[in-house]
Amino acid sequence: MVQPDNFSVYESEFHVRYAETDAMGVVHHANYLVYFEEGRSQFMRDRGLDYAGLEEDGFRLPVTAANLRYSGSLRYGQKVIIRTWIAAARSRLLRFAYEVLDPATGKLLVSGSTDHIWTDAAGKVTRSPQQWMEKFPNFSRNCEK
Amino acid sequence: MVQPDNFSVYESEFHVRYAETDAMGVVHHANYLVYFEEGRSQFMRDRGLDYAGLEEDGFRLPVTAANLRYSGSLRYGQKVIIRTWIAAARSRLLRFAYEVLDPATGKLLVSGSTDHIWTDAAGKVTRSPQQWMEKFPNFSRNCEK
Amino acid sequence: MVQPDNFSVYESEFHVRYAETDAMGVVHHANYLVYFEEGRSQFMRDRGLDYAGLEEDGFRLPVTAANLRYSGSLRYGQKVIIRTWIAAARSRLLRFAYEVLDPATGKLLVSGSTDHIWTDAAGKVTRSPQQWMEKFPNFSRNCEK
Amino acid sequence: MVQPDNFSVYESEFHVRYAETDAMGVVHHANYLVYFEEGRSQFMRDRGLDYAGLEEDGFRLPVTAANLRYSGSLRYGQKVIIRTWIAAARSRLLRFAYEVLDPATGKLLVSGSTDHIWTDAAGKVTRSPQQWMEKFPNFSRNCEK
Repeated sequence: MVQPDNFSVYESEFHVRYAETDAMGVVHHANYLVYFEEGRSQFMRDRGLDYAGLEEDGFRLPVTAANLRYSGSLRYGQKVIIRTWIAAARSRLLRFAYEVLDPATGKLLVSGSTDHIWTDAAGKVTRSPQQWMEKFPNFSRNCEK
Repeated sequence: MVQPDNFSVYESEFHVRYAETDAMGVVHHANYLVYFEEGRSQFMRDRGLDYAGLEEDGFRLPVTAANLRYSGSLRYGQKVIIRTWIAAARSRLLRFAYEVLDPATGKLLVSGSTDHIWTDAAGKVTRSPQQWMEKFPNFSRNCEK
Repeated sequence: MVQPDNFSVYESEFHVRYAETDAMGVVHHANYLVYFEEGRSQFMRDRGLDYAGLEEDGFRLPVTAANLRYSGSLRYGQKVIIRTWIAAARSRLLRFAYEVLDPATGKLLVSGSTDHIWTDAAGKVTRSPQQWMEKFPNFSRNCEK
Repeated sequence: MVQPDNFSVYESEFHVRYAETDAMGVVHHANYLVYFEEGRSQFMRDRGLDYAGLEEDGFRLPVTAANLRYSGSLRYGQKVIIRTWIAAARSRLLRFAYEVLDPATGKLLVSGSTDHIWTDAAGKVTRSPQQWMEKFPNFSRNCEK
């Protein structure tokens, strides 16, 4: 996966919670989907996009696919960096990509992506919300990296 | 807490999931509230009460208080028994009580209770649903143990 | 993904928990990795393989990759079927595949796979445990479906 | 519960994650134990106390009891404030108390406490770690509020 230009990457940083660890002593692998989601949320907030507001307006952005590659692990109390960017935006697909890094070493721990599609509250596929398109006009064209 | 008569206790049994453990190697303490909820769900299902249906009818049963006492722990793969019963049912309070047991030894691991109140979908307090009162007519009177 | 022969598929069945749902009213997408793990656990238990015991013996089976495709959703209280099988077993890779089905309709809701590698407690790659190889002698050869 | 003097209260602030909500549209009640834990973690970090390091030194601080009172709820994307303080510290009991507030309104949403005891890695009760006693010398005496 080619890295996007820095302009479009958002980094968020937080501490590993104890509840996120498992009996192997490290963050349970399912929680990286929650970290990805948190990266996505902060990516949107950072750009002034209010996803909760979009939900109130009747839009939903469910996940249609996800993939994860694990090459390292995280322990309780460690700081973690999530890098989030849009890897593809087409009429029927919005793909976010993610990298989870250890800020102490810069080591890549987990990478992956999630695919999404805009729907209404009943789950019917819709066009992108106006607010979204205004924030991301450059994603009206194919931008697969 | 005095034990109720056996008639009204429901036992459900399942295995500890790996994702429920934490770095101490045992089930994370917050997950016992999820176990209590699972006990409560199975208690209702066992009595033919369809909580999902009650939600569709506009009822909600949010938790207003919870307490837990931990005297033991559980590891991945262990079987766990949850005993669930109604400890109190008054006009504005429904209290479930729970005991989590190790089926191999019978040892009590965690005990506790959750308080609930019937509301509508908007969170406004309502009377108990008809379906509930028909299943639990004996709880029209105070039944605090 | 070609279906394996029935012999090797394990079906487990359980109810959706309330805590597993999110504000969209359906099971949160990260929880399917927990469902996959539960399918994997029951697959092993069903074959008399004690994963907890393998951990005590110093083995770990961490996830190195995961992918999920979502084509449907589940609500609180619904029953869910998880079909689990071994899709690949090579010297350095063990791949489980999964299908989550709605038992009421037979509809496929989520499919996916997780890749694993046997390590010791310190995370160093090891050969498969003896107990595993005895249970799955047919996986000493490449069995990619 | 009497409020402690301000000196000893720690406020941490973060956003509600989507994965923390449930089908009622609000944060699932079990997650407030995770929020409490996060408040506790940040309380310790803020005082230069390294809980992960204490675990490496063989200490554990398991939860022996918890109670929660729910008077409000939180939705995805809202900011949340957790106020954390030590409500009691005796030879065999360490009690943290918590308040979860809506920063937009100052409204108290959830309050509660967790009781803990210092143990070794095998779960045997021990005296408080030296590092802890140095940070909290005033808790060598009874300080129940």
